[in-house]
Amino acid sequence: MGTLHGVGLGPGAQDLMSVRADRLVRGAGHVAFFRKAGRKGQARAIVDGMLHADAVEFPMEYPVTTEIPVADPRYNDMLSAFYTDCTAHLRGLVEAGADVVVLCEGDPFFYGSFMHLYTRLKDVIPVEVVPAITGMSGAWTATGQPITWGDDVLTVLMATLPEDVLAEKIAATDALVVMKIGRNLPKLKRALRAAGRLEDAWMVEYAQMPRQRVQRLVDADEVTPYFSIVLIHGQGRRP
Amino acid sequence: MGTLHGVGLGPGAQDLMSVRADRLVRGAGHVAFFRKAGRKGQARAIVDGMLHADAVEFPMEYPVTTEIPVADPRYNDMLSAFYTDCTAHLRGLVEAGADVVVLCEGDPFFYGSFMHLYTRLKDVIPVEVVPAITGMSGAWTATGQPITWGDDVLTVLMATLPEDVLAEKIAATDALVVMKIGRNLPKLKRALRAAGRLEDAWMVEYAQMPRQRVQRLVDADEVTPYFSIVLIHGQGRRP
Ligand SMILES: C[S@@+](CC[C@H](N)C(=O)[O-])C[C@H]1O[C@@H](n2cnc3c(N)ncnc32)[C@H](O)[C@@H]1O
Ligand SMILES: C[S@@+](CC[C@H](N)C(=O)[O-])C[C@H]1O[C@@H](n2cnc3c(N)ncnc32)[C@H](O)[C@@H]1O
Repeated sequence: MGTLHGVGLGPGAQDLMSVRADRLVRGAGHVAFFRKAGRKGQARAIVDGMLHADAVEFPMEYPVTTEIPVADPRYNDMLSAFYTDCTAHLRGLVEAGADVVVLCEGDPFFYGSFMHLYTRLKDVIPVEVVPAITGMSGAWTATGQPITWGDDVLTVLMATLPEDVLAEKIAATDALVVMKIGRNLPKLKRALRAAGRLEDAWMVEYAQMPRQRVQRLVDADEVTPYFSIVLIHGQGRRP
Repeated sequence: MGTLHGVGLGPGAQDLMSVRADRLVRGAGHVAFFRKAGRKGQARAIVDGMLHADAVEFPMEYPVTTEIPVADPRYNDMLSAFYTDCTAHLRGLVEAGADVVVLCEGDPFFYGSFMHLYTRLKDVIPVEVVPAITGMSGAWTATGQPITWGDDVLTVLMATLPEDVLAEKIAATDALVVMKIGRNLPKLKRALRAAGRLEDAWMVEYAQMPRQRVQRLVDADEVTPYFSIVLIHGQGRRP
């Protein structure tokens, strides 16, 4: 039996990968990665130039991303079938003795797609996970300001949550990170305004990637890329 | 002029450091790091065997850790004077042309001591920050369970907060990370029980370090090391 490695690559820059991830990626005979159909895939893009010439690539293309609302039962069914297909293929490789590296943007266990493979395979084949720098660490570092001090409370929210939930959580925290923004940006802005925090918010696009952009949210565009994070820095105790 | 590098080392294992951090640490002519008086210092311990034979070390020893309550004005005064001394020395080195690496456990901008040097020096000398894997990523990876799924809310709390605040925040979140536990463990347990979440909580000691230990919190010792994290995994949407 081989091993399935869920390898976190960090937020984007190749040299922000861990030494362990770097070693596993360069040595990999098989690499798998998620991507939107027709795209290269961000995880795959991070390792450009690092793969062995003979490495076998297994792109896993989402059957659906934003075309069907997540609340629609078809969304769940399609994704569930997709993960079943992916795991069957990966399991076959590992049972045939191969070590397979699944390339993961950011940290694999933090809102990552790898988790869906992991839960299906962890009791079936050997699986190892390599933690990594999260997109949010990449984002707050890009702003040049620490995110949390002293006893600050940090809340991490998905912009896909309902507006009233967002507003309530934002009002109750010191430091804030919001992910999965996309078409939820107008809703997120209303929630930030309702919580009285809109002026404190920063928008970080493509943190630690070549197109990185850092702005105050009030100055940002209405349309943001998938890799966007909104954050508010804590102002806690500091001697 | 040289540059001051605030270099995150990650949670403990040397190969969980980023490739960039590894390069900076191995090449450093000067390294500085915080430690408790009489101790080696965790950040320094992580880089054992990596430093250049001629590297000049500058340990920065906290004048106080838990001997005086943080609410006591003397605590603030002593730490403030300490950071002023440290920054004066580091500034002198950098202005004389040296590159100095400040070794930081975890991510420098996430509740880190380096932030106190950073705010005092960032407008005076060139300062660069290298993000890193946080202790909490190390901890949830150690439990072998993803921390957040779907729209889960993640709340990060310091166990130094008042008991009623802890209980309220714990009751209101999906996934939870609690840091700075130490002598606050009995209070934290009461807050978890009040929130009805005690049974769901895990204790991770020394995440990604040689003495790593993972247990359910109800089975854990009453006395925990400084490097301890309590966490509750989110149970959000998963196709
Ligand atoms: C499915 S989650 C994956 C998170 C990832 N596992 C991590 O550890 O950061 C995708 C969301 O993460 C955020 N994100 C991750 N990396 C980012 C980066 N480098 N820059 C900006 N946003 C990022 C975006 O909000 C995006 O919508
Ligand atoms: C001053 S904070 C520093 C946090 C650090 N900058 C980070 O990114 O994780 C210290 C607290 O972090 C937590 N911590 C950091 N690394 C840890 C590890 N490897 N294992 C367990 N706890 C850790 C502990 O709760 C500790 O009390």
